[in-house]
Amino acid sequence: MATAPGDLSPAEARAEFRAGLAVPTAGWSAGHAHANLLIVPRELAFDVLLFAQRNPKPCPVLGVLDAGETTGPLLAGGDIRTDVPRYTVYRDGEKTAEPTDLHAVWRDDLVTFIIGCSFTFEAPLLAAGIPIAHIEQGVNVPMYRTNRRCAPAGRLGGPLVVSMRPIAPDRVADAVRITSRYPAVHGAPVHVGDPAGLGIADLGAPDFGDPVAIPAGHIPVFWACGVTPQAAVMESRPELALGHAPGHMLITDARDADYAVP
Amino acid sequence: MATAPGDLSPAEARAEFRAGLAVPTAGWSAGHAHANLLIVPRELAFDVLLFAQRNPKPCPVLGVLDAGETTGPLLAGGDIRTDVPRYTVYRDGEKTAEPTDLHAVWRDDLVTFIIGCSFTFEAPLLAAGIPIAHIEQGVNVPMYRTNRRCAPAGRLGGPLVVSMRPIAPDRVADAVRITSRYPAVHGAPVHVGDPAGLGIADLGAPDFGDPVAIPAGHIPVFWACGVTPQAAVMESRPELALGHAPGHMLITDARDADYAVP
Repeated sequence: MATAPGDLSPAEARAEFRAGLAVPTAGWSAGHAHANLLIVPRELAFDVLLFAQRNPKPCPVLGVLDAGETTGPLLAGGDIRTDVPRYTVYRDGEKTAEPTDLHAVWRDDLVTFIIGCSFTFEAPLLAAGIPIAHIEQGVNVPMYRTNRRCAPAGRLGGPLVVSMRPIAPDRVADAVRITSRYPAVHGAPVHVGDPAGLGIADLGAPDFGDPVAIPAGHIPVFWACGVTPQAAVMESRPELALGHAPGHMLITDARDADYAVP
Repeated sequence: MATAPGDLSPAEARAEFRAGLAVPTAGWSAGHAHANLLIVPRELAFDVLLFAQRNPKPCPVLGVLDAGETTGPLLAGGDIRTDVPRYTVYRDGEKTAEPTDLHAVWRDDLVTFIIGCSFTFEAPLLAAGIPIAHIEQGVNVPMYRTNRRCAPAGRLGGPLVVSMRPIAPDRVADAVRITSRYPAVHGAPVHVGDPAGLGIADLGAPDFGDPVAIPAGHIPVFWACGVTPQAAVMESRPELALGHAPGHMLITDARDADYAVP
């Protein structure tokens, strides 16, 4: 690449991944929305879309490729089977492979859900001078299963999963205000402080991602997390489901700013 | 009724309709969201929900009752088969009956979509001193098929249908500002002025509802309309589909204010 990853257009970035590059996408195609991927057989697709309708904060659907569709307006000219740097294959709810393309497992009855990602609201937090611990510490955001149940839908049900970012007390209001402007990508926090109130016993032992050191005086702030629908689908143990590998997102043609409300 | 219709709680209003009263709901249970109804067999339900995801302005889904469900949080303690004053039955896309309950046609594979209605934003328009012609003239809002196509979904496709309200030039900005606060119930107008730009040849001949007299100097303002998904479903000629009769809405427990953004 002659161009820095942050300066590539989404189409250029997807072309790199289509050609086989398999790296996390943090920092790529700055200003464009990165997204979670969840791909299920058509017979489970209504339950997934209904789960999303009933749980919009953890499951913000940005787009859907119906059975037989492999591209769409969020990835113009692209191919959902090749354009994500690394995928995860689940069979009966268990991870079985992490391929760099899906040709070996693709079927014409698969429906793709493109789901918003908190990368979109982290950029404006950083722009407002609010540090983000997991970025500073070079790890994945910590995520936790909570004691809150999602509204079930058909065969799908499960706990709300949250991501956590420690925030300085004098910036909590700003973090709420800024993220609430992005209702399509998780929006405002669901909980501020007191991990026990969500049934989280130990912030140092996240269920997904990595633990972060919490700066002195900072308090944990929790946002609904896009892992929620994936966890609900896996609990139903579908014969086949596909997703992106952690941090290896779909880079969409949408701009982060497209998801901001005034 | 000892109580005026506007003062009844949604549960009380639904009980009146359950008991057989069949009147339009305009003015009932003031401050609570009235909703459109669209009920289809489960095998068509994914297409409907996907159509809504791809066309959120004309098709704002407030809630879904899955196959086998006849009540839900929007009508607590109620029954979707009886609690709307009058229904419409469509077979192969043609209207065949307008019963006051659905017991004769109900099946356990039917999925109910509860869809936002512009009644929700008409109250704040009136409260801001913006007169609404069809209310003043005592008729149904005029609705038009446009030359804009919706994004198709599975077997569903069709034109965007709009409702029209004539607005005084010095209140158009207010009408935009007020309705844009209700993105979950159609939101801001899709078009201001120039009916020909939407392919509407004659404002005096609406495709649904009634014509209104346009006050001198007022300009027509067009909002996405909840008839859009119904029109798309009927064009696919499903063997059975159910809806509400015009103006005979489901009165939900949600408050209009629940759908306002700051």
